[in-house]
This record gives sequence, structure tokens and C-alpha cells, in this order.
Amino acid sequence: MKNVAVFGAGRIGRIHASNLAALPGVKLKAICDPMGDSAAQLSQQLGAEVSTIEAVLADAAIDVVAITSPTSTHSDLITRAAAAGKHIFCEKPVDLSVPRAIACGEAVKAAGVACMIGFQRRFDPTFNEARTRMDRGEIGNPEMLIITSRDPGAPPAEYIQASGGIFRDMLIHDLDVFRWILCADGDEADWLSASGSVLTDPAIAGLGDYDSTAVTIRTKKGRLCQINTSRRAAYGYDQRFEVLGSAGMLQCGNQTPSQVVQWDAQGVRGDKPEAFFLQRYAAAYKAEIAHFFDCLQTGAPFRTTVADGVKAQILADAATESANSGQAVKL
Amino acid sequence: MKNVAVFGAGRIGRIHASNLAALPGVKLKAICDPMGDSAAQLSQQLGAEVSTIEAVLADAAIDVVAITSPTSTHSDLITRAAAAGKHIFCEKPVDLSVPRAIACGEAVKAAGVACMIGFQRRFDPTFNEARTRMDRGEIGNPEMLIITSRDPGAPPAEYIQASGGIFRDMLIHDLDVFRWILCADGDEADWLSASGSVLTDPAIAGLGDYDSTAVTIRTKKGRLCQINTSRRAAYGYDQRFEVLGSAGMLQCGNQTPSQVVQWDAQGVRGDKPEAFFLQRYAAAYKAEIAHFFDCLQTGAPFRTTVADGVKAQILADAATESANSGQAVKL
Amino acid sequence: MKNVAVFGAGRIGRIHASNLAALPGVKLKAICDPMGDSAAQLSQQLGAEVSTIEAVLADAAIDVVAITSPTSTHSDLITRAAAAGKHIFCEKPVDLSVPRAIACGEAVKAAGVACMIGFQRRFDPTFNEARTRMDRGEIGNPEMLIITSRDPGAPPAEYIQASGGIFRDMLIHDLDVFRWILCADGDEADWLSASGSVLTDPAIAGLGDYDSTAVTIRTKKGRLCQINTSRRAAYGYDQRFEVLGSAGMLQCGNQTPSQVVQWDAQGVRGDKPEAFFLQRYAAAYKAEIAHFFDCLQTGAPFRTTVADGVKAQILADAATESANSGQAVKL
Amino acid sequence: MKNVAVFGAGRIGRIHASNLAALPGVKLKAICDPMGDSAAQLSQQLGAEVSTIEAVLADAAIDVVAITSPTSTHSDLITRAAAAGKHIFCEKPVDLSVPRAIACGEAVKAAGVACMIGFQRRFDPTFNEARTRMDRGEIGNPEMLIITSRDPGAPPAEYIQASGGIFRDMLIHDLDVFRWILCADGDEADWLSASGSVLTDPAIAGLGDYDSTAVTIRTKKGRLCQINTSRRAAYGYDQRFEVLGSAGMLQCGNQTPSQVVQWDAQGVRGDKPEAFFLQRYAAAYKAEIAHFFDCLQTGAPFRTTVADGVKAQILADAATESANSGQAVKL
Repeated sequence: MKNVAVFGAGRIGRIHASNLAALPGVKLKAICDPMGDSAAQLSQQLGAEVSTIEAVLADAAIDVVAITSPTSTHSDLITRAAAAGKHIFCEKPVDLSVPRAIACGEAVKAAGVACMIGFQRRFDPTFNEARTRMDRGEIGNPEMLIITSRDPGAPPAEYIQASGGIFRDMLIHDLDVFRWILCADGDEADWLSASGSVLTDPAIAGLGDYDSTAVTIRTKKGRLCQINTSRRAAYGYDQRFEVLGSAGMLQCGNQTPSQVVQWDAQGVRGDKPEAFFLQRYAAAYKAEIAHFFDCLQTGAPFRTTVADGVKAQILADAATESANSGQAVKL
Repeated sequence: MKNVAVFGAGRIGRIHASNLAALPGVKLKAICDPMGDSAAQLSQQLGAEVSTIEAVLADAAIDVVAITSPTSTHSDLITRAAAAGKHIFCEKPVDLSVPRAIACGEAVKAAGVACMIGFQRRFDPTFNEARTRMDRGEIGNPEMLIITSRDPGAPPAEYIQASGGIFRDMLIHDLDVFRWILCADGDEADWLSASGSVLTDPAIAGLGDYDSTAVTIRTKKGRLCQINTSRRAAYGYDQRFEVLGSAGMLQCGNQTPSQVVQWDAQGVRGDKPEAFFLQRYAAAYKAEIAHFFDCLQTGAPFRTTVADGVKAQILADAATESANSGQAVKL
Repeated sequence: MKNVAVFGAGRIGRIHASNLAALPGVKLKAICDPMGDSAAQLSQQLGAEVSTIEAVLADAAIDVVAITSPTSTHSDLITRAAAAGKHIFCEKPVDLSVPRAIACGEAVKAAGVACMIGFQRRFDPTFNEARTRMDRGEIGNPEMLIITSRDPGAPPAEYIQASGGIFRDMLIHDLDVFRWILCADGDEADWLSASGSVLTDPAIAGLGDYDSTAVTIRTKKGRLCQINTSRRAAYGYDQRFEVLGSAGMLQCGNQTPSQVVQWDAQGVRGDKPEAFFLQRYAAAYKAEIAHFFDCLQTGAPFRTTVADGVKAQILADAATESANSGQAVKL
Repeated sequence: MKNVAVFGAGRIGRIHASNLAALPGVKLKAICDPMGDSAAQLSQQLGAEVSTIEAVLADAAIDVVAITSPTSTHSDLITRAAAAGKHIFCEKPVDLSVPRAIACGEAVKAAGVACMIGFQRRFDPTFNEARTRMDRGEIGNPEMLIITSRDPGAPPAEYIQASGGIFRDMLIHDLDVFRWILCADGDEADWLSASGSVLTDPAIAGLGDYDSTAVTIRTKKGRLCQINTSRRAAYGYDQRFEVLGSAGMLQCGNQTPSQVVQWDAQGVRGDKPEAFFLQRYAAAYKAEIAHFFDCLQTGAPFRTTVADGVKAQILADAATESANSGQAVKL
């Protein structure tokens, strides 16, 4: 039985806390959040106690901490949790600063604890099935990857301001997918070119950010990846990719709430995709946290490590630089 | 808090027990099964006690019984549970004998308890969305319903022998869907013609049953329904229907494990449907049992009553008679 | 070079005339129609002469006649053309009377001429591809066939009155598809049950006809076919079938004017099917008439003979009888 | 009646010649090709005469020339035909040299003749339907365009050597689609970044070309376009685009030979796309040449002018430069 504390009782904290509380062999003991009410409500719902970070780190009975607090707190909490000998699950990103993210990895290594970074897309049933087929060789050698990633609408200005910009906030997931899908054999990004525009809301330009971006990455082996993103799609949350290989292509589509198709005078109409990430990635979040505890149990390696988090962050920095300068970046 | 006992720890019992144990406001107290091991294993897993039917019915602390035992036991257990003042959830069918099924309804009524019959397809997200759109008038007046219902493979001979035949065992679900979708305004079946063949396994003929059937029903309002079923589809479990209305058509497709589409030299290939009913109707079973307890709580009427179970049984009998005689049946 | 005369310059005559005029080795010489204007206009457009039936039949230079005049004229024209030694292409049906249709077959045989009946669905690229794959064994032994056949709207009352009813007019095509797809190995219909309703327009009841029908056919080998039809679908012309075999299933969908899919706040919407039979079966009509002349050239057998026309007619009669009596028909 | 001569009886010449010969009001008079056999065969098939370029240009009875000869001859033939007062249809590209292409435009203008450049994708029913819906405002303001363009296999080395490289040969079409779809309101490319790799065949590297490319274009209004291409797709010819607008998205899929979907133990499989451009764009070529003659007749402007050809060529040059230098190009 692993005893777990969750740091952060916000939207993403609630998901992870609920999911891990339902796992066999896992006991959710404590929830910590500066918003006492959030922690209290979630604790009551899941049969845990409200606690503090200090108390948790000092409690030898706690084996694992799940860090689901705001990005700016991640590196500090990882470092302290590692020092306290806790195994760590931390939501992406490790940190907006690459050096700090690297330091987290070193702290974890020095402490000899396990640390997994949450990139839930690697656990999406559809995306994961694509990777599984690639591993079986069904499309031969992968050559090109096209990622489409569109949010239903832009987050509030405060969120954008603290986010590090669209590449570090939103594309970090897509950049991780790029590495997971196109670099599975140890390949890495070699050249990156990014471009950004503000097309949906001028306020975003005022924040120094973009709402629409186009990124191209070429790997050391010459593979090509294109990522297109928008902060706003009129039809909802759009999360797809397709990977072309020497022997075929795998296309990963959206999930829909139902399989109803309506035929009427306007046409033949299926559902819009699942509304947003909580719905689309519900199964992925469940599978991700189960994977984390499975690996803790068996000693198998995590699917996403601190090093993966660092590498995605380096690509996000490069994309930001390229979009701002208008020039490609050699990695 | 509702205290619940489950009668039957087989395949379907395990599903309902797990689902209801996870509901807020519901406490799974006891599990009864003549196979002591099954009951013990499930009880341990879900934190319930092993008990006996007699003990449960005598225990005033038990509010609800869920009957998930073999069909032949349903009417006896419904009658006894009703007499003991328990609210009842009972898997379909009520009973293979229509008079006995009617008697169950009377016993439930006399006892003043609530009794819902489990026809989980009415809770499938896709099928339910179709019905919701019909209620909103999106396809106008419903006119024709085409139901396709195919199993991946035939059940064992012992199962078939005790099943009452394909119409009472397998089509009972489709006949309930017919009533739910095409008779929502109080319409009812008026005329039925059925035909059956043995095409997949001669042994089924030896059991006096069919493996492939075609049923047509005309309602009092002249609506037409066609149901095609097979005990075996090489591509798995196929559960679809389409309903044509005066203003459009709704088509309910299968769910698939993933949204991956593979393009290769053979074509453009999506997943097969979910493997069988446990996968396909996983969400439906969850929604069904939640609906049962919601209705108990709020007093709202159940979506499927004993009367619905009786009416589906009458249609199954009529289909059996028609297939055997080669002549249509007037209802 | 085959010299051809076309009898009938209406809608279907214009299609066949245009298509055959474009074939290499075929010369459209004459067009006959009691509506002189129609014949004149079409002749001018296609570089043919206006003529009369009598003149054509007496003209030794004419090798082939294509009969595309109203149904009531078919048997007379087939008989006369055969007697005059002309090869014959005749639109379906042979005749509304089975005995007269049989007599046509005998006249053709006695005269030693070739006669093909136009059932264009057998030449639809999609339907034909399905049959080709069945012949290759891709779905094993065929077991069940579900045909969906819906018109965008009912024809005028005069048309319905002269049509012989929905089974002889509209379902004749579906009944031919049944034989072509499910009876390719010499199997034949053994038992048929039909039901009809008037759901779209009460005027159709006044004409003694139905607008919505459901037919089930069981073959001698126990295969099952269900056909559902409606005179009116709000979304247009719907022509699909699916055939289940022991090793898989083939599903034949509608064609659409374009492959555009629109994603917006209402959903994800593709085109409606092609508007009506002229659009949907444009390629089929071309392939059909080319097949006719190919067979004339090579001596290969026609895909659809007078005997096929007779057999479809017998099934249409049986369906009419069954729908009117409410009882199944043994064939 | 327009009298037409065709220069070039190769693959593309045969298509255009056959299509224009079937148009009302158009008379194919002469076919010229240095390969006398090709010209003779095509002339005989279509009822035209074999002639020479000199004779055609000197023949006052010829109104129109269709230039379907190799790229290297285009500018010379356009210039001479314009000087001879002939109206001109010329296959893309105008010329591999932008200055020479511009000079062609000037020659045409000076001569007062009409000249249309063949970019057949603008006439594809699917692509054209998307543009029509954009013009109706169905997706609001266009923001992003993703083009996927993959050939079934690389052309022979000699073709690649003379082609000007993948950007000038293959992407010229995609670059024209970019302008047609994303710049319909007069917007133009402002910034372009391209990257290329050799992944399918090392011999292509030996020719100084790429087989896999990724291009990003940002317009003056900030719209973003990404184009991915490959010389080889295991599943055939893949021609799709999707355009995201402020109010929705239009997705243009491939056409398939049939609408058969096969369900079996391997999955649910539709057809591969049409095999190659002759099949996929058969309808587009017909519509394109009909449009040309319609415009000649009515005086309406051509959908694709020499100026469009020049602008696509400028983009192709920029993409070549960017891929070779690894740096973005400001236009």
C-alpha cells in the first residue's frame, strides 16, 4: 500500500486525486492547498486529511507526493520532496526555466527517488494505440508527423501572462508528442522554425503572446514534424495527429461524446469532439496515474521522465525564440 | 445512504456490484451466490459481506436488492424481495414466462416497492443521445427503425438450451429498443413477422434454435421496424440502429477502442467495434445503476419497468411463434 | 460498328442515348418518340435522325434497339424488335405482367436475338465492387443482406397509378439486388413476407399504394434479406446495402457530391448523398450500356437477362400480395 | 465554334485533347507533337489532323492553342502563340524562370489574347466546394491552412532532373492552392520557411533534390499555412487540405474508387484514395477546360491567370532557397 499526498487541489489536482484514490494498493492520505476550502472539500469527498506541505514532507508514512500545484511551484516542491525521500508525480511542466528543470532532475537523481512528469497525451487510448502499432512496425520507418492542436477558446489574460507564452504553455504537449512519436528510436530535434500570429483576439498581442502558431521541426535523421495550433476553434477541442511512415500512415482522430450521425436537409452530421481536455483525456489521466503506481510497484521505467520534461521545455524555448526572431533555430 | 445486497456474483453481478459500490450514497453490504467462492472473492474486493438470500431478506437494514442471478431465479427472487419490502433492481428478463412476469409486476405493486428491470441499452450514450434528439423533434415523426444486432460468436450449447431461444435471449434487448425508440408516444406493436435460419453452426439447429433471424414489426400507427441478428459476426460485436423520421434520420454506430485510422496498401482501416457487451455497454451499465438509485432518491419513474419487461417478453414469444410457424402474428 | 435506334426520348432515354452515342464502335442512328419535339431535340444534340418504330424495325441497317419508352410499351416493343431480328436493350421492368414478361423471353429466344434488361444498380461502382469482393471470397459465405432504399420524395400521383405499386415500381431494383448479391450461387427466394404503410402522404393510400415498406426474404439455403424502403427521405436519395458473410461484412454507402467535411458549432458535417438516381447512378448507366455493347461484340453473357427481369417481377408480385394479405408467401 | 490545336500529345495532352474535343462549340482541329506517332494516334482517335506548330500558328482558322508540351517549351510557345493572335490554354507552370514567366504575361497582354494557366486543383469538386463555402462565409475569416500532398511514388530520375526540384514541380500546385484558399481577399505571402529531407530514396539526394518537405507561409494578414509533401506514400495518392476559420473548419478529403467498407477480423476498412492524379483529378480536368472555353465565350475572367502562375513560381523559388539555406525568406 502506497500512502500519497497531493499538493494542489485545483482543477488538475482534483482529477489526479480522484483517480489515484480509486487505485488498488494506493491510499490517498493528505491534500494540501493554500486555498483551505478547496483542500477541505476534496479531502472530505475522497476520505483524506487536509495537511500542509511541511507536515507531509516530515511524515515518514507518506511514500508519494503528487504535485498538481501551479507551475511556478513545481521545481521547489520537486526539490523538497526529493530531499524528503518521497517518490514524485508532477504535472507538466517541470519548470518554465530549463536550468531549473535540469536542477530538478539532478535533485531527484541525487535523492534516489522516482519522479514522473505528467504528459497525459502519451496515455490517450488513441495516441497510445498509434505508438503501439509503430512499435510493431505497421507503418515502417516514421518520416513525417502532422500535429493539430486547437483549444476551444483562449484562457483568461492572467493565465496567459503567467504561462510563459503559447509555446511553453500549450505546445509543450505537442512538442512532447513529437519526441514520443517521431524520436522513439533515440532521434532528436535538429532544426526548428516557428511562426506565430494573433488572429483571434488582439488582447493576446498586448500580452506579448500569439494565439495561432505553426512550427516545423527536422530531426537529426531528417524526419519532419509540423505542428499547427490555435487558441480558438469554433467547433471545440481538436487534438489530432497523423504520422506517415515508409509503409503506411496512422491517423489519430478526436473522440466524440456519442456515435450518433444525423442525416437531414443540412447534411450528414456527427458529433463535435469532446468539449475540452478534461473530457478528451479522462481515460488518459486515469491510465497515466495507474502507470505511475505500476512502475513504482514493479520498478519499470516511467514513460515520461524529468529528462523528457526538460527536452520538451528546450523545444518550447527554441520555438519561442524562432517565432520572435523570424529565424530558424539550430538545436 | 441505501444499503444494498446483490444476488448473483457471476459476470453481470460483478459489473453491477462494482458499479453500485462506487456510487455516492450507496453502500454495498452483502453478496449472495450459491458459488461461495464467487461471492467471497467479490465481497472481499468490494468490502462487502457474504450472506444468504434468507438472511438478506430478513435484514431490515437492507433497503435494496439487485438480482443478477440466472434468469430462472428472477421471478421467485422478485416476489420474495417485494414481500420483504425491498426495492429491486433486476437484470432482464423478468421471466421467460409471460404470466410469471406479469405476476412479478403484481407482487411488486402489491408490496409498494420500486422495481426496475435492467435493459442497459437504454443507457448507452449513443442510443440515449438518439432518443434525446427524437424527443427534441430533430427528425420529426419517427417512421422506420432498422436494428442490427450481432454477437461475435454463439454462446455454449448449455446456455442456448436454457435461454428460451434466440428471440427470448438475444432479441429481447432489440425488442425493448424497438419499443423505446419507435413507441415513445404510446404506440405499440400491432403485427409481427419473424424468420430464422441456422447458418453458423448446425449444432444450434439440434437445440431447436436459430442463429440468424429477421424480424419485422408494424405498429398501430403503421411504423415499421426491421431487426436483423446473428449469433456470429467475424468482425465482433455489432450493435447499431437507425431511425428514419419525417424530417431526418439518426444513425447510431458502434464504439471503437480507439480513433486510430491506418492507411496502408490494403486501404484505410479503422478499429473493429468494442469486443463484446461488457466493453460496449460499460458506460451504459454505470449510467443504468446510477439512474436506479437516482430514481429511488428522487421518486422519479424508472426508465424501464416490469411492464416494459413484460411487453418485450410478449414480443419475443410472438417472434418465436412466427419464426416457427412461418406466419405473421397479430398482437 | 453497331447501328442503334432508341425508342423513347424521355428522361431515361436521353441518358442511354447520350451514353451509347459516346461509345466507340457504336453509331446512334435514329430516335423515335411519339413526342416529336423530344425526339427532334435529342436527335439534333446527338447527331441522329428522327424516325418511327416501324421504319426502324424495317431498316436492315439498324442492328440494335434500345427501348426506353414507358413500361406499358416494353413487351410489345421487345416482341416486335425480336421478330425484326434486332438485338435489344430494354429498361426495367420487362413488363408488369409476369406472363407477358415470360412471353418476351420466349420471343427473344425464338428470334435468336440478344436481349438485356437494364438494372443499372448492378453496374454501380460501389455495388459492383462489393459483388466482386464476394466473388473473391473476402467475406466467405453470404448469410444476410440488409437493403436500404429511400427516395427523396414521392413521384406524382399519375406516375404512382401507372406504376403497379411501390413493390413493382421502386422495389423491383432492390429485389434484383437481392438476387444478384445473395443468390449468386444459384440460390433463390423461398419465403417472403412484406408489410407496407402510408406514413408520408395520405394521398398515396387513396391510390391503393404504400409509401413505406419492409420486406423479408428467406432463400432456399436459409439466407435472410431485409429491405426497407420509403418514398421520402428528408436528406435525399439513400441507396445502401450491407451483406454479412461468414468471414466479414461489406457495407455499400452512398456517394456524395464532394468530400468536404465542415466542422462548426453544430457538429462535423459531410455532404448529403447525391440528389437522385440520375446523379447517383450516372457512372452505372454508362457502365451498363458499355457492358451491353461489349457483350454483343464478344458474345459474353449479359449480366441481366429477361429471366432476371421475370424473377424480380415474380418477387414484386409476391411482395404486393403479402403486404395486402398480411401473410407470408411461399415461392 | 472555336477551332483548337493542341501542342503536345503526351499524358497530359491526351487528357486535355479528349476533354476539349467533347465540348459543345469546340472543334479539335490539329495536334502537334515531335513524336509523330503520338500525334497520329491521338488525332485518329479524336478526329483531328496531325500538324506542326508553324502551320498551326500560320492558320487563321485556328482560334485557340492548348499547350501541353514539356515545361521547357512553355514560354516560347506562349510567346509565339500570343504573337500569332491565338488564345492560349497552357498547363502549369508558365516557366521555371520567374523573369521568363513574367515576360510571357507581358507578351500575352501586348497581343491582347487570353491566356489561362492550368492549375486543375482549383476545379476539383471537393476543393472548389470548400472555396465556395468560404466565399459564402460559412467558416468566417480564414486563419490557417494545412495542406497534405503526397504522391504514390517518385517519378523517374530524368523527370526529377528536369523538374526544377520538388518545390517547383510538385509543390507548385500546393502553393497555388495556398494563394487560392488563403489569399482570396487579396492577401499575399509575407514570410516563408521550408525544410526538406531525403527519406524515401537516396538517389534523389544525388540529384540535389528532396523527397519530403515541410513549408510554412505567413501572409501579410498573419494567416498561417503549412504544407507537408512526400514523393511516396505507401497507400497511394493523398491530396487533402483543411482550412480553419474564425467560425469553423473545412476539411477536404480524398476521393475513393468506391464507397465499400469491409468489416472483418482486421478492422473496418474503406478504399484507398484514387490511384493518382489522372483518376483523382479527372473531373477537375474536365471542369477546367470547360471553364476556359466558357470564359472565352462570355469574356468572364479566368480562374487562373499568368499572374497566378508567376506568383506560385515566386513562392516555389523562395521555398527552394529556404530549404537550401535553412533560413526563412521574407517575400
